Amino acid sequence: MSLIVVGTMAFDAIETPFGKSDRIIGGAATYIAWSASNFCRPIKQISVVGYDFPQEEMDQLTNRGVQLEGVQIKKDEKSFFWSGRYHMDMNTRDTLETQLNALATFEPVVPDSYQDCEFLMLGNLVPAVQLSVIDQLKNRPKLVVMDTMNFWMETALEDLKKVLKKVDVLMVNDSEARELSHEFSLVKAARKIMSMGPKFLIIKKGEHGALLFHEDQVFFAPALPLEDVFDPTGAGDTFAGGFIGHIAHTKDISFENMKTAIIIGSAMASFCVEKFGTERLKEIKKDDIDKRLIQFRELVNFDIELV
Amino acid sequence: MSLIVVGTMAFDAIETPFGKSDRIIGGAATYIAWSASNFCRPIKQISVVGYDFPQEEMDQLTNRGVQLEGVQIKKDEKSFFWSGRYHMDMNTRDTLETQLNALATFEPVVPDSYQDCEFLMLGNLVPAVQLSVIDQLKNRPKLVVMDTMNFWMETALEDLKKVLKKVDVLMVNDSEARELSHEFSLVKAARKIMSMGPKFLIIKKGEHGALLFHEDQVFFAPALPLEDVFDPTGAGDTFAGGFIGHIAHTKDISFENMKTAIIIGSAMASFCVEKFGTERLKEIKKDDIDKRLIQFRELVNFDIELV
Repeated sequence: MSLIVVGTMAFDAIETPFGKSDRIIGGAATYIAWSASNFCRPIKQISVVGYDFPQEEMDQLTNRGVQLEGVQIKKDEKSFFWSGRYHMDMNTRDTLETQLNALATFEPVVPDSYQDCEFLMLGNLVPAVQLSVIDQLKNRPKLVVMDTMNFWMETALEDLKKVLKKVDVLMVNDSEARELSHEFSLVKAARKIMSMGPKFLIIKKGEHGALLFHEDQVFFAPALPLEDVFDPTGAGDTFAGGFIGHIAHTKDISFENMKTAIIIGSAMASFCVEKFGTERLKEIKKDDIDKRLIQFRELVNFDIELV
Repeated sequence: MSLIVVGTMAFDAIETPFGKSDRIIGGAATYIAWSASNFCRPIKQISVVGYDFPQEEMDQLTNRGVQLEGVQIKKDEKSFFWSGRYHMDMNTRDTLETQLNALATFEPVVPDSYQDCEFLMLGNLVPAVQLSVIDQLKNRPKLVVMDTMNFWMETALEDLKKVLKKVDVLMVNDSEARELSHEFSLVKAARKIMSMGPKFLIIKKGEHGALLFHEDQVFFAPALPLEDVFDPTGAGDTFAGGFIGHIAHTKDISFENMKTAIIIGSAMASFCVEKFGTERLKEIKKDDIDKRLIQFRELVNFDIELV
């Protein structure tokens, strides 16, 4: 199994109704790597950081089996920085500040040692960067998964549409699916988005779970009802990491196996929100994950006899 | 099996972003009876109507096995009337007009032939009326289920709390659960509400499904992703009807069987929203229901092997 992960490695500063973080480690590729490395190693990371990104964080990733040859370090620039404030419902947030820094001029280079990867996870990032990575690969991976967000729909739609034509699975949240398709019904939105390229569509609904669409099939994965959601930052990336980690581990890209992968992604996301940043993801062990997967099974398992 | 259903029988006028109805038949007890009678007959109805409620509608209910001895007909008054307009998301609505009419002075009388019922479904209604029915029953039913709404939390909270102490299962939507408990987290809200009386709590989340809480257990039932939601009026009552109909049919009040009952309620609600008013509920047959239950099973069924 070999998996390339593309995305940001960054600093975040987060405010929620329940607390406020300092400047902490974040970025889509960081969360994806921490999550996916529970299921699949090595992970071949592609990203960019500035001089201020701690070596200790890099070392922790290396110890997890995350290869960093594709991570550029810009000696004269700071790392990407985002700060935001969540609303009471924790599903919506305002961006307070964005400093692109090292990300502004990022041109990804796929190392030779990353070629012939079987799975590609394009974390949320400038569509042109996602496209560049796809184009640099000499052989098409078995499965290309793409995450994106409303920001790129509003500022780089044409590039985004080009990437869509080259991916197998797209992940967006419900409001993004509506924005991209101009359809309110998620069933209609899914059909329209799948006609734009991806054969599979995952619509993330936060505390309301996630939907997987493929042709005329649909699967629903619940979110675990949690006593407290402490910090939703990175939950979507962590979900993506669990999803692609399981797929890369099993090498099975069937709809049936994607159902399992979505449940695993949901379980991983439920850990992520329990503490600020990647803190909880760094603590959990296989046993914690197994216990939570059992909770998911109990959460939705039912019997119906049709008589 | 014997089931008493208490609730309104009324006229509604509905506006949605997709259409507008004339003055059509509605009311919680109407929807509950149409839904529950697929699973359990007879149904012993308690309600009140005015001189304007069509005999034909009464006859249709009688033909479905709904007994109307407990339905008072006020010769000098009109039936309860509600009109409302749904927002684009179909989860929220504005009330345009409410005419209590016959409902204003309603004092329910439980006929002798309704005594010794095993199951009691208290549809959304003035809490004092719900309480009066409970108090008139000589033997406590095996299971008492109560639906209510935010309006009663704001205008009749003390009465509502009295009813809560006497019921086994409460059904509310997510915003009502938050309002009643003063907790934002639904897990915390559930714990607090169960300390107010009901041993089981069902939180309805519309297109996002429903949660069942009991002690430390939780079960999640999805809603079927629908291409079009035409009219959500009565969906909650139809859900309640499917739930109590299955319970009354099986006489099994375990948590396990309530899971099945919630899936059946969700399936019934998914039909209700496909047309205005009770129209779709009057059309469907056992075969339609079975097919939809299979769709629900496929929607959430997944395999996970823990290795």
